[in-house]
Amino acid sequence: MELLKKVTEGIKPTDREMMRRARERVDNLTKPLGSLGALEEMAVRLCGITGSITPDVGKKAVIVMAADNGVCSEGVVSYPQQVTALMAKAMVEGTAGVAVFANLLGADLRVFDLGMKEPLDYKGIINKRIRPGTANIAEGPAMTRDEAVRAIETGIQAALDAADSGYRMIAVGEVGIGNTTTGSAVFAALEGLNPSQTTGRGAGLDDAGLSVKIRVVERALEVNKPDPRDAVDVLGKVGGLDIAGMTGVFLGAAYRRIPVVMDGFISSVAALAAIRLNPLVAEYVFPSHLSAEKGSGLVLERLGIKPCLDLEMRLGEGSGAVLMFGIIEAAAAALVQMKTFEEAGIKRNI
Amino acid sequence: MELLKKVTEGIKPTDREMMRRARERVDNLTKPLGSLGALEEMAVRLCGITGSITPDVGKKAVIVMAADNGVCSEGVVSYPQQVTALMAKAMVEGTAGVAVFANLLGADLRVFDLGMKEPLDYKGIINKRIRPGTANIAEGPAMTRDEAVRAIETGIQAALDAADSGYRMIAVGEVGIGNTTTGSAVFAALEGLNPSQTTGRGAGLDDAGLSVKIRVVERALEVNKPDPRDAVDVLGKVGGLDIAGMTGVFLGAAYRRIPVVMDGFISSVAALAAIRLNPLVAEYVFPSHLSAEKGSGLVLERLGIKPCLDLEMRLGEGSGAVLMFGIIEAAAAALVQMKTFEEAGIKRNI
Repeated sequence: MELLKKVTEGIKPTDREMMRRARERVDNLTKPLGSLGALEEMAVRLCGITGSITPDVGKKAVIVMAADNGVCSEGVVSYPQQVTALMAKAMVEGTAGVAVFANLLGADLRVFDLGMKEPLDYKGIINKRIRPGTANIAEGPAMTRDEAVRAIETGIQAALDAADSGYRMIAVGEVGIGNTTTGSAVFAALEGLNPSQTTGRGAGLDDAGLSVKIRVVERALEVNKPDPRDAVDVLGKVGGLDIAGMTGVFLGAAYRRIPVVMDGFISSVAALAAIRLNPLVAEYVFPSHLSAEKGSGLVLERLGIKPCLDLEMRLGEGSGAVLMFGIIEAAAAALVQMKTFEEAGIKRNI
Repeated sequence: MELLKKVTEGIKPTDREMMRRARERVDNLTKPLGSLGALEEMAVRLCGITGSITPDVGKKAVIVMAADNGVCSEGVVSYPQQVTALMAKAMVEGTAGVAVFANLLGADLRVFDLGMKEPLDYKGIINKRIRPGTANIAEGPAMTRDEAVRAIETGIQAALDAADSGYRMIAVGEVGIGNTTTGSAVFAALEGLNPSQTTGRGAGLDDAGLSVKIRVVERALEVNKPDPRDAVDVLGKVGGLDIAGMTGVFLGAAYRRIPVVMDGFISSVAALAAIRLNPLVAEYVFPSHLSAEKGSGLVLERLGIKPCLDLEMRLGEGSGAVLMFGIIEAAAAALVQMKTFEEAGIKRNI
């Protein structure tokens, strides 16, 4: 609890003076004013985050939180629960989507077991198990408040460790069969939305499956009555270890002034929870893609964030966030490597 | 004329059998069916284009066509015409936006002078000058038909040479002050659109400037009466050497079965012209971003192409296309490096 309190209360705003200087440079680069669009905003924000006019985001990590969700017993999922562990293994083996993209983009992958059903003794999986999967949210709380705090703090510590290891940009991913159900429940609880607005087809439910899933989310909210003003309560009662851990990564990255990239629906729900714990977190969060999972667009809308990639992806894992690394690096490179009109000796007439 | 005829008539459809095999593999990769969205379509198409189930797009080139446009004398531009040459120089020096991004993405940049106003004797600029800038399209044809053919053929040859040098993916960019005006005229002429629909603010015109620019495009169409069924006629009369050259790059890439990436408005107009010359070109073209330049969305709509990046960029140069390289490489990597369920020993229950 001490780490959560210290980090949440210790997050500072981005450096406004550095952002003013960055904006001045961006506006004087050899290009029509504003013509780099969203890249300009990103570059300016990177300067505010890092406190440097030459932000370095080259060393990148994807932090993936793996956990199982008791709600699977409600039949709301398209894959057997063992797939969580199989996919976690595929990640460290380098054959899962997020691993392939991380390799391509030159990012390192760190997979944390926060509580898969069975312990997975496999090289590369970082054991931070809190419990062997959560309980079924449709029947009671997913975990105790203490466990939720520990999951969040594990995520915080993962971000702090990444910062200590020299990583300068973090993407947040997950694997956990059933987590679009818990994600929908957390989103609905935090924002007072109807589960039918927040619940989608996940890995591929049909209409009947979707109806069941919506009803499960409704039951989860009725049974647990999470307090929308208390994100920790929401995460512990209707969330999952994975979502709580990801919430911690967003908090820890903001605390250590590192840009942190959202992936799809689950990841953006975790970002929302972190931002509810401290609104300043939003200054450190970068969007990536608009996921095809229902609810994804609505979370981004609630966060006031416009996604940059529209690839109709809904794989999760952090796969979309990793692709965004390339775009954010381009924003930084433009700021640092392009010349100003003055440096290039070009006169402007506008 | 022989090269243009040979290449335009020699473009073949993509390999349908290879695409069927690729689709089968994509559908069996360890991920929910369809969850890689647009990346899946890209991967399948890369297989059809290259004729390989393990498409290699790692060696990448950005081909930039530089030229000046006589229409600048109408006062439709935000920058003095000399900026064309200064930016071409900045490209080979590595400080222009497209060069910074190409460097970041590991792509090589080839800058062709198709007819800047003054010859630019500068290391790295490839001299393929056809004439010292075009004539003013508001008063007569930009160039002769023969010059238009030569500009297109120069673009074709640039693509063929890139293929011979081992490049496996090409992005198409430009620099040419005044070319949003010529681009708007070509687009309006090819599609029978009203200039007010196709003409935008370019590098930063105000309302009054935009009105003048629309009137200039209207005059260009009235004076020259380009034949909408003859893309070469349109390019020669109301286009520019840069747009004609880019049209050739799309044709040459399709002929040599190399994926070719559109940039923003100008580049997409050139792709449209190439597709009007042979509709099969469309099978080889990849979109990149939705440019903030008016008309950009409408060209993509006419081409039935959905952009993947939404960054509100309007820099041109090929800058957005280069960023797309990373996404297309990710699509290929997913297909090649991810395992199928069978390979991974995971049973599916959907």
